[in-house]
Amino acid sequence: MALRLDYSNMIAGHASAGIPETQLREHAARFRDAHAALRQGHDAGTLGFLDLPGNRHLHDQVVRFAEQARGGWRDVVILGIGGSALGPIALRTALRPPLWNVLDVSHRDGHPRLHVLDNVDPLTIGTLLDGLDLRHTLFLVTSKSGGTAETMAQYLVVRQRLEDAAPDDARRHLAFITDPDKGVLRAIARDEGIPAFDIPPNVGGRFSVLSPVGTLPAALIGIDTASLLEGAADLMRRCDTAELARNPAGTFAMLQWLADAYHGLRMQVLMPYSDALRDFAAWFVQLWAESLGKRRPDGISVGPTPIAALGATDQHSQVQLFMEGPVDKTVTFISIGSPARDVEIPALHEDRKELGYLGGHSLGRLLDVERQATAGALARRGRPNMTLHLDRVDAWHVGALIMLLEIATIYAGALYGVDPLDQPGVELGKQFTYAMLGRPDAEGARREWNLLPKPEPQWSV
Amino acid sequence: MALRLDYSNMIAGHASAGIPETQLREHAARFRDAHAALRQGHDAGTLGFLDLPGNRHLHDQVVRFAEQARGGWRDVVILGIGGSALGPIALRTALRPPLWNVLDVSHRDGHPRLHVLDNVDPLTIGTLLDGLDLRHTLFLVTSKSGGTAETMAQYLVVRQRLEDAAPDDARRHLAFITDPDKGVLRAIARDEGIPAFDIPPNVGGRFSVLSPVGTLPAALIGIDTASLLEGAADLMRRCDTAELARNPAGTFAMLQWLADAYHGLRMQVLMPYSDALRDFAAWFVQLWAESLGKRRPDGISVGPTPIAALGATDQHSQVQLFMEGPVDKTVTFISIGSPARDVEIPALHEDRKELGYLGGHSLGRLLDVERQATAGALARRGRPNMTLHLDRVDAWHVGALIMLLEIATIYAGALYGVDPLDQPGVELGKQFTYAMLGRPDAEGARREWNLLPKPEPQWSV
Repeated sequence: MALRLDYSNMIAGHASAGIPETQLREHAARFRDAHAALRQGHDAGTLGFLDLPGNRHLHDQVVRFAEQARGGWRDVVILGIGGSALGPIALRTALRPPLWNVLDVSHRDGHPRLHVLDNVDPLTIGTLLDGLDLRHTLFLVTSKSGGTAETMAQYLVVRQRLEDAAPDDARRHLAFITDPDKGVLRAIARDEGIPAFDIPPNVGGRFSVLSPVGTLPAALIGIDTASLLEGAADLMRRCDTAELARNPAGTFAMLQWLADAYHGLRMQVLMPYSDALRDFAAWFVQLWAESLGKRRPDGISVGPTPIAALGATDQHSQVQLFMEGPVDKTVTFISIGSPARDVEIPALHEDRKELGYLGGHSLGRLLDVERQATAGALARRGRPNMTLHLDRVDAWHVGALIMLLEIATIYAGALYGVDPLDQPGVELGKQFTYAMLGRPDAEGARREWNLLPKPEPQWSV
Repeated sequence: MALRLDYSNMIAGHASAGIPETQLREHAARFRDAHAALRQGHDAGTLGFLDLPGNRHLHDQVVRFAEQARGGWRDVVILGIGGSALGPIALRTALRPPLWNVLDVSHRDGHPRLHVLDNVDPLTIGTLLDGLDLRHTLFLVTSKSGGTAETMAQYLVVRQRLEDAAPDDARRHLAFITDPDKGVLRAIARDEGIPAFDIPPNVGGRFSVLSPVGTLPAALIGIDTASLLEGAADLMRRCDTAELARNPAGTFAMLQWLADAYHGLRMQVLMPYSDALRDFAAWFVQLWAESLGKRRPDGISVGPTPIAALGATDQHSQVQLFMEGPVDKTVTFISIGSPARDVEIPALHEDRKELGYLGGHSLGRLLDVERQATAGALARRGRPNMTLHLDRVDAWHVGALIMLLEIATIYAGALYGVDPLDQPGVELGKQFTYAMLGRPDAEGARREWNLLPKPEPQWSV
């Protein structure tokens, strides 16, 4: 089996604060309802991410563009934030060698570096743009709506620099990834003949990594996007069952929901033991937090808090809290069967007890042993945890892992009783921003902003 | 004022789930006890981090070594994990230009790149070592005890490579940062004449960033470590008062503790609006989690869960949850008065409403407006938050910020009733690791490990 969820340590028999096995079985019917809701959503056309692995038209466009671009660019820069950035960053870190942007081009097989501007910090943007040779740089501007303030601000800065460098040539250095019809990016693309790739209207930002949002930059740096989509498709087929005990995404979602709803385990850590999946955990944090953290229709605020961690690194940071702090977390480890490469630990200083036992093992073995030790120690202290086992970190497995967690998110939305596809909570902050910057259509927000209490000097130190 | 904590939005009058002003005043005596405990700890010699800003001897050693090394190394690599890695990474990101390791040496003013191996992932380590020119590389091996498995494994791998490359020259490429007397690194340094820098015995890993653990790599890449220590010393002086209303570290600690203990706000987000402080939040996570997340003497598990976030980026990821999820968090923003550099947003596409309002503002202004908008929107929804204002991100301010949070951690330990200096919860996992790798002195752990329940096939999918 290529991807397996072992949840032994989520069960009360293994970890005392865990879920009684009977409780999991009792909720089989509830899961059937969640699975039916996913099917209905798919039939109703709201779950477009499920169609991405089979959308050959969209993928062909991406592959063709990447083939034509081959050898043409030294640097590719994504202008995007949130789902437009987290997915591509996760793919680059997982599926390209470490230090990709530092490696010499010969170690990148002729592919470009990939930079992601996921913020509007002027120092970062200014420094990056100063260092690029704009003649050899392609900018991918990614925004579903075309209205994202941060991305649009970046675009204006970049556009001006391109115009200044080569007035007639600016358009050749741009590609947009946006809604097929709506929004300002689509309009500009049409007016100016800038290449534009579709984010299907029923695919939201945090579910977009298998759309051109993720696949276009991935293909440009040589990632096997076909295999990525195949892994996702395979996992979808495995989850095409209402039987909880056979559905990995269903099991993951149900365990996390039961842990939160019945056992007070409201924080949910994702902790890969693999540097390659370091940024994948951040992608998951957005997916889980933004989909599930919201007000139910009855006004109750719900949602688990996802936390990103990294093994073994966080054993020396967050794990003390996970082991001995309040019993309010689950930990999901990701283990890798075969590392892409292993390194032997040589037998030096064999007379020293702090060093001698290490020689002859490999770093990969050490890493995996530490994962087992941490999982075992957590269980020994009664703290529920589970492990997603991947045979290896390659495009197929990463595609499967992405789809597992996306489908689990939809199930979890049904279990929590919230719409996993919206994000109404961030609207007020956006409106306040528009108000302060003087956007003409933000009058109402300006009035509300002016009524808010302001900082009080006596509460300052 | 150079560093200011505005906690208006932590108070119930501004954010309905916040702390009543009376409650803060009622706890003034409790804070005096916490402050007295810090003084006693300092007098008893357990709080060595408070002596680091004034330890001229230690700092002179670091500066002298860095001066002698000037121009000699192309790459410096830290072998270290936890506090040995998080501090140096935070300093590099905060106080050197973005993309430091990607920039050409001319943009680094002749200083070396700085890599930090904070894990034992074989792909990362193998790729980095293959790419380095070992003749021009210095390795800093950082471990207080000298027994850290991950760091010792890295050291063995590096040592072998150095011996293979130039048998007689290996020692010249090494410097150790460790206990002044104890441990295997100190012993090897003595035997072989390898330069070694002290981590004072009363300075634990997560409080070590202002010791050579942080200052040596910082000095090697040209950071003004004297100014870093001055900022820390200044903040120490500001906190030398038992009067809560005048003590910034005390106010921070008291607000966070009251929020957790009385108001169910058990997750505590640190969210700088500055890419430069992106990795600083990860440093804080270790400090707060490992110091406070533990069992009290009466057996009760306590401790807030710190969460790292980044503005404006996380407005498109975690903020939906912060706004609408359960009311169980505080958010501490960090704002920067003057960005190190600003970038104007040009007035292009002025006819498009999604773009037109941005022109004429700067990216720095946009970032700061978004911070204000997010803080205001959180308060409007009743969610407590506060803001640490720094005039700018420079060595002085970062030193002050470090000391503020370190002192706050000691106060918080007293308020929670735990020892903020130990980390007993990670010992079991270490013992299990030793047991599996066959370290001779791990017999007891091996027996306990063998008794643990193992994965059960029926709990797998």
